[in-house]
Parts: sequence; structure tokens; C-alpha cells
Amino acid sequence: MGHELKLVTLLLFLSLLSVPSAEAAILYHKWEVKYEYKSPDCYQKLVITINGQTPGPTIEAQQGDTIVVELKNSLRGTPWFDGVAGVTQCPIVPGDTFVYKFVVDRPGTYLYHAHYGLQRANGLFGMIQVSLPPGVSEPYTYDDEKSIILTDWYHKSTFEQATGLLSIPFGWVGEPHSLLIQGKGSFNCSTPGIAAGLCNATNPECSPYVMTVVPGKTYKLRIGSLTSLEALSFEIEGHNMTVVEADGSNVEPFVVKNLFIYSGETYSVFIKADQAPTRNYWIVSKVVARNSTTPNGLAIFNYHPNNPTTTPPMVPPVCPAWNDVEPRLAQSQATKARQGYITPPPEKSDRVIVLLNTQNKINGYTRWSVNNVSFNLPNTPYLIAVKEKLHHVFNQSPPPNGYDHRHYDIFNPPTNPNATTSTSIYKLQFDSTVDIVIQNANALPANDSETHPWRLHGHDFWVMGYGKGKFNIHKNPKKYNLVDPILKNTVSVQPYGWTALRFRANNPGVWYFHCHIEYHLFLGMGVVFEEGVEKLGKLPPSIFGCGDAKVSP
Amino acid sequence: MGHELKLVTLLLFLSLLSVPSAEAAILYHKWEVKYEYKSPDCYQKLVITINGQTPGPTIEAQQGDTIVVELKNSLRGTPWFDGVAGVTQCPIVPGDTFVYKFVVDRPGTYLYHAHYGLQRANGLFGMIQVSLPPGVSEPYTYDDEKSIILTDWYHKSTFEQATGLLSIPFGWVGEPHSLLIQGKGSFNCSTPGIAAGLCNATNPECSPYVMTVVPGKTYKLRIGSLTSLEALSFEIEGHNMTVVEADGSNVEPFVVKNLFIYSGETYSVFIKADQAPTRNYWIVSKVVARNSTTPNGLAIFNYHPNNPTTTPPMVPPVCPAWNDVEPRLAQSQATKARQGYITPPPEKSDRVIVLLNTQNKINGYTRWSVNNVSFNLPNTPYLIAVKEKLHHVFNQSPPPNGYDHRHYDIFNPPTNPNATTSTSIYKLQFDSTVDIVIQNANALPANDSETHPWRLHGHDFWVMGYGKGKFNIHKNPKKYNLVDPILKNTVSVQPYGWTALRFRANNPGVWYFHCHIEYHLFLGMGVVFEEGVEKLGKLPPSIFGCGDAKVSP
Repeated sequence: MGHELKLVTLLLFLSLLSVPSAEAAILYHKWEVKYEYKSPDCYQKLVITINGQTPGPTIEAQQGDTIVVELKNSLRGTPWFDGVAGVTQCPIVPGDTFVYKFVVDRPGTYLYHAHYGLQRANGLFGMIQVSLPPGVSEPYTYDDEKSIILTDWYHKSTFEQATGLLSIPFGWVGEPHSLLIQGKGSFNCSTPGIAAGLCNATNPECSPYVMTVVPGKTYKLRIGSLTSLEALSFEIEGHNMTVVEADGSNVEPFVVKNLFIYSGETYSVFIKADQAPTRNYWIVSKVVARNSTTPNGLAIFNYHPNNPTTTPPMVPPVCPAWNDVEPRLAQSQATKARQGYITPPPEKSDRVIVLLNTQNKINGYTRWSVNNVSFNLPNTPYLIAVKEKLHHVFNQSPPPNGYDHRHYDIFNPPTNPNATTSTSIYKLQFDSTVDIVIQNANALPANDSETHPWRLHGHDFWVMGYGKGKFNIHKNPKKYNLVDPILKNTVSVQPYGWTALRFRANNPGVWYFHCHIEYHLFLGMGVVFEEGVEKLGKLPPSIFGCGDAKVSP
Repeated sequence: MGHELKLVTLLLFLSLLSVPSAEAAILYHKWEVKYEYKSPDCYQKLVITINGQTPGPTIEAQQGDTIVVELKNSLRGTPWFDGVAGVTQCPIVPGDTFVYKFVVDRPGTYLYHAHYGLQRANGLFGMIQVSLPPGVSEPYTYDDEKSIILTDWYHKSTFEQATGLLSIPFGWVGEPHSLLIQGKGSFNCSTPGIAAGLCNATNPECSPYVMTVVPGKTYKLRIGSLTSLEALSFEIEGHNMTVVEADGSNVEPFVVKNLFIYSGETYSVFIKADQAPTRNYWIVSKVVARNSTTPNGLAIFNYHPNNPTTTPPMVPPVCPAWNDVEPRLAQSQATKARQGYITPPPEKSDRVIVLLNTQNKINGYTRWSVNNVSFNLPNTPYLIAVKEKLHHVFNQSPPPNGYDHRHYDIFNPPTNPNATTSTSIYKLQFDSTVDIVIQNANALPANDSETHPWRLHGHDFWVMGYGKGKFNIHKNPKKYNLVDPILKNTVSVQPYGWTALRFRANNPGVWYFHCHIEYHLFLGMGVVFEEGVEKLGKLPPSIFGCGDAKVSP
């Protein structure tokens, strides 16, 4: 089972279980996190950097290595709060240093990012690339490799965004914003009404990102999306891409003209520099699944030795329509485990949990809910509350195992839009096999069902199937892919559709499962699974210090 | 000895010592702290409110009462950090509720405010008014009482301010800003270059504050200053003021036309509505001690039954020149304990500490220093570090007891501008009498010596004397006021001058002593005193949770 490389608080899950193997290396990283003024899309804004960069440094390792990140929170004096309020640890306060130590026990492409509030949206993220150990070969060859991270970028501070989301009337994060490719975008500085002196179209910080390739060579390109909101279509003008990896799993290769990528996902694709080498080409990211006015993100695919800053001669390619679900679903369904690298799923599950995704109101505030419960994290981390038997910390009754399948109309706004809020969690029997069906529905406005990328912490899951309309627990599981399902950690659920996944509850801990859209998670779109916490040893002091997890000696 | 009502973290010192007396009341307050958009000076900005207000609610109590404030930090999801990094407790994290409980053992006027980073500047403050118990009379009579808080107000977020202060080149908080009277000011919305839609001169939130009085009546007006930066002159057009209280102590009354008030100070003054009752009058606050372009703050002194919104017919009064030190010093020297309410100081002190105030550089960054040491708070609160003998938390060697008095030229920029930084603290012998002399000097630019209001936590001190030039330890103490010195908690030090104060180190704890200018404190202008921590019982769990003060059960 793959070790989870997703990040909480300022950074990484503290691995409570992994122990380094004898041969592997220990790789030390020393990071300083602080605020700096940057102009990633020509518009000057406070950004959180790691060692002066955003995206942060890429961590490169070999399978089996131990990565140690000594993270100094130098958001000093600024009233900033850094923490995974409530799941596995208490926050890291400014000035503090936290040491994350974990073994990378699976090769592949992963992302790290802040995991509290809207922090991620402020620039605190990067990529982790894990290669195979010496003597072990990948199932493919290529000439060189590259990587990029795709993001969206907003000019309001995360405080302003959060205040709007928590207000009546609801203050949406708003358009226009920018799409960034490897941290660079281009806002239109002529937009009326922006404050003088903040936007400078000629600032070199917002010159387009350039990826230089040598004609005839084949590249492995690692692509990660850490958008706060947007689902993206990514393409390189005139070049097909062969998908070979998704979320760290080898994929049975398939060719696409454009790659759909959802927040939290990673892919590796092969690109051959096989077009006319006398010119440059556009790299494009485009918003899909939302009717957005945000301009496409643009970067330059530069054929050496052309001038890397020369704008490609053609207009950027026309990307897929934002509301065409079919090709998105087709890509998801095409993403299967590579032959020879299949880990078959258990044939049956011990438990099925159906999670209805709805947009709701609570006391007039807009929220997102799962089975009509909008999630609230407690102040005391669940891990501590469960281990130390602090029953008062969270609601001990289980959350709903499903919804009113017979009567609920997923194609229309909820007849009763009001949801409840809870801190209750799903307790899973240790080592049992669990099926999760994520059922999409209509949001609050009519004719609106959004796309949600759901991420599970602590596990990879098999993607058992996708479907349209209402999931039928009697019929649909019969068509589950038991042959070659891909193992992923993030999966999309399309409008008015469902996605089924399966995992073994064999990683002792407390694990967040949530929509990876920053603003949806912030508004309650998540659940928590607990399994085998009683098997854990003494919890480390470094995760304590908040809520009821304050102890005096 | 007066219980300290200054606030740390989001709010109040947790009283570790006080126990309620049998007769007194217990007053419960339930506060919710959150972000809201407000336009206090017509310019819309995120503000921190308490129960929707800034200034926050006024706490009214009688001497001997116990005040319980149950504070819910609802800065939810916003990456916000709330704490007194390092002195007496760990931060309160969002979502957490912290209960402050303390006995108000002295009557008078006090202020509460956030005490971390630049939080206070964001609106989180209010007033505490403690009256005498039944049967005990004040030494004066009046018809009614009023209160106002004076502040300055900046449009950059505290994050932007902090990033500027910690940058090379130094990013000063900048002009123009606004002066607010009881939370209301008036920015010039025609200022070029401001973003569209943010400034609205007709927003009712920024209509001038109105204080309505009845002709012929005498008012006790409690005035507090919580400016982030500015020293102020306060006056009411055509009305004299009689000063009767300062920082909670009764003052031998004296009459002023304008009151100089420094950040952190409180005064009570008597004002008689004895002018022509057919019109309204201006209430004015003006920047002194800095050559500022910030317009005066204006409010309306409304004679009932005139229309409260009618602008006074005359131009606002001309306030004192910003750079005239003499009247400021004269007011300070006139502020003495009221006859019949004198607590005489010990005639001699056991120890004298001289604190030279200088502006310096550390690695090219601008800092403020005391005896060439720019203060750095450790992550682990001193109180915990001292009590639990965590010697590694801070530098155990004592900070300098003075400076090179013989050779240091206080009238010129430092010949060597470089300072050092340290976490070391002054350990005071319990129950000893300590003299502190704050010696002002020239800042980094030539011909510039600033005014600093120094505040001591945990104690009131006697103000023994003020002087110009370099303090002479042999001559000046002979002229100390041993007869009727005022007891204060905040005292000003004028340009190129000195101020001497005396206190008894009889309050077990760790106590911050610092310039109350938010930006100076932020840049290192403070020291810490420790006394008698060994006398404290077990520390409460609620103050733990950061740095090395993380404990697992």
C-alpha cells in the first residue's frame, strides 16, 4: 500500500509508521516558509514562498529513501495560522520548526501543499518525484524529463476570500483570475478599476514559462494540478500526449490531444518533439467544468535553438468546450492500470458507503454537504481525540451511511436546501474492504451540477467505475472493473454522475476524504475515516498543543 | 499592587494569582472574534471585530469583581495566528475558545487589545472601566461619563505591513493613513490611484463620531489611545479639560487645553459643557512627535438639542506643532498622584537598569534595540520555559544592565549601527525594588530622535522623573520625586531625553516591558523581566501547546 505523500498543515503527514530500510538514503531538506511580494501574473501580491520560490522546491528521491524536511515557519510576526485544524495534528505556529520525516515507499509523482483554510491558494505547494531504485527499470524509456504544476491565482487575499465565503450575502472568490503554468501567468493590467502601481505587464516575474525541448527527443512530462477551484484542460499545440502515470500508478498507455486534470491529480505523459522545429508552440491550460471568463494560461514550448521568448506564430489552439462532459468521462474511463503492473482489488467489499454531494444552506450560509451533513473539523485533532479517548471532542454517533436514494432527486435543486453540520466520523473496521460511491447531484441553482475531485488521505484506492445519473447499488457494482482498475488518490465525479472506489482500511490512523477544491472543502465538503488507531503507539508530542490536546507536564 | 489589565494574545492576561473575594460579582462576557468588512474611514477593509464591533465592547465592572471572558476565536479557516508568541502563553488557534478570568482589583480606566504581531492594528481592542465598590466614593463628582478610544488606521493589511518591515529595502507602513476617534475617521476618497469601489465618502460607517452633551453639565471623559504608531494631541474646541486620572491612578487635577496621549495610555478628564450651547464643537486628534501628512481626526462635540450631524461653524482648532517637545514634557511632569491618594515609593532601589533606545541594523534589516540588543521572542513562552527549567529555550546569560554611558553619543546616529539579537531576559530578585531608566538617543537618520511610550506588564510603576539629554546616575536620582509620583503602566520618553521609573518586583511571573508603538515592538524594542516564577503553582494546561511546550500525555 502506497505511503501517502499528501501534505497537511504547512507540509507533510508525519509518518507514524514508516521506518527507513537499511540501504536507502536519508535526504535532508531545510525549508524556510515566509511571505514575499511577488507578481506571478504581473499583479503584485503577498505570496507564501518556500526558500524564496513558489511553486516550492521539487523533492527528488528514490523509492525507499527517507525524506526529512525541517520546516521553519518564518511567517514571523504576521498573524498567520498554519495547521491541519483537527485531523492529525495541531498547527505549527510561526517561529516554530517542524520536522517531517517519511519514507517514500512508492515511485511516482506526488504533490505537497499546505492543508489549512485557504493557505494552498497562497502559493505554498510543490512536487515530489520518486524514482525507482537502482537496478529497477521503468516500463518505458524516454530521453529526458520535465515537470510543471498548474494552478489558478486570485488577487484577493485568502482572508478576504474566506470572509466572503463565510458571509451573507455569499461573497464568491470571483472572476477574473489567472491561470498559472509553473507559477507564471499574465493578468490583463488594463483591467479597469485596479489600484495604481500594482500591475506591471512587463515585470519579468510574469514572463511566460518556457519549456525547452530538443527536436526529435521524447520527454516524460510530470504534470500536477493544484488549482484552488478550476478543472483544467492541458495541451501542447500540435503535440499529442501519451498518458503513462496517474497519481503514482503506471497507466496502460493511451494517447490524448488534451489532458483533463483535476485539482490534486498528477499525471505523467510522454511528448515527442516531432513537429516542425523552426518555431515555438503554445502550452495551454483552460478552465473546464465551469463557465469561466478567466483567460487561458499560456506558456511556450520552445524548440531548441529557437529564441525561447519568441511567441508562437499561430493563435493558441481551441480547447474543449467547458461543458462537454463526455471527453472528460472518456479520459477517466481510459485510465487503467498498466499490464504487468496491476494490483487486483479484493473481489468484494465488506461495506458500502454512498456519499451524496450537495450544495446547501445552513442558517442562510452557503455550504457543501455530504449526505446532508456539512463537515466541521473539531479543534482537537481526531487522531489525538480517538487515541486518547477524548469522546467529548467530536460527535460520537456515526454519520449517515447513505442518503434517501429512493426519494432524492439528484437532477434538481434540493427541495429542502437546509443541511446540518457535524464533527462525526466514519469508523472503519480495520483491514476491511470499503467501497465508497460518490454521488453527484444538482447544486442550489437549477441546471447546475459541479465537478468535484475527491481525494483520500492515507490510502490509494481502486477506481471501480464511473456512471451517469443515480448510482444503483444492485446493478452498477456488477460492472465494476475487477480486472485492471487504476490505483489513485484523487478521483473526479462528473455532473449528475457517480464514481465508485474501493480501498482496504489497513493503515492505522484518521484519514480525511474531501473535495480537493479549496473552496468546497472550506465550506464543509469532506468526511473523515478512522481505522485501527488503537494499534498506534504513543503519539509524538509535536502533534499536540491545541484544543483539548493541551497538556501540562 | 494593581492587577495588570493589559492584554496578551487575543485578549487578557490569564491571572494566575488572583482569587475572587467573597462579596464581589462574577461578570461573564461571551465574545466572538472574527473578520468582517468595515469602512471605518470610508475605505473598505477587513477588520477584526468582537461581537461585530471595533472598538470592541466596553467591559464595565466594580473593583473586586471577577471578569470572565469566554473568547471564541472565529477567525475560522482564515490562516490567522493569535498569540503572545513567547511571553506567558501559547497562541489561541482558530476555532478554539479561551477563557480569561481575572479579578479587577483596582478602579480606573484600562485597555484590552491583541498582543501579537501587528494584530492590534487590525481593530482588536476595547476599554475596561472599573468603578469603585458601593460605599466608596471617588474624590470628585460629575454629572455623567463618556469614553472614547483614539487610534490610527492603515489600509495595507497587517501581513503587508509586516512583510514591508521585514524587507530590504525597508517598507515603512506609510502615509497617508487615518486617525480614528472611537473607530470613525474620514479618508479622502479622491486620493489618486486607489482601487475602484473601495472608498465611499458617504458610507454611514464613516460618519463622524458624535458625543452629545447637555449644556451646563460636567462630564468625566475616559480617553484611551491604542494607536499603532502615532503620539496624539487631543482637544475639544473651546473647552478646557481637567486631568483627574492616568492609567488607573488618581491625578492631582490640572487643566489643559489639549491632552497629549501616547499609545497604551488612558486618561480621565473633566469637561464642562460651558460654551455657547447653540452650536456644535470639534473634537480633534492630531499627530505629534512625527512630521506626518495624515489629516487630523475629527468628531463632533454636540450640544443637545442641536442636530448631532451639524458640522461646527468654525474651522477646527490649530493643534500644537508636532515637534514642540516642551508642552509634552510639561504635561508629563504635571501628572502627579492626587493628594490623599498617594502611594509613596520605596526611598531607594536595589538595582538600576539603564535601557538605551536606539534604531539599528541587523544584517541590513532595520531594527530597534535596547542596549544594542534587538529583542526576539522565543517560540516557547518564557513563563513555561522558566517554570519547567527548559534552559535551551532562551539565552540564559543576562542582557546588558546598561550601555557605554561614557562614550555613547546620544545626539548623533550610532557610529556602529549594527545591533545584535537575543532572547535573554532580566531576572529580578523577588520583592526587590528596581529602577529603570529609559534613555532615548538619535535614530539612524541624523537629527531624529523619536518619542517612545514604554509599557510594563504585570506592574504599575512610579514615575520618578523625566530629563533632557543623557541621564546621569549620580546627579539625576537626587531629584527623583519621592513625594507624590504617579503610578502608571505606560510612560513616554521624549526625544533625546530620559525617563526614570521604579517598581517592586513582587508579582511572580514573566513580564514584558516594551515600546507600545506596534511597529517598534515588532522590530525588537522590548525586554522581559522575570521574578519569582518558582513561587507559582502548576501552570494551567491552556497556556501550553507551542514550541517546546508541547507535551503528550
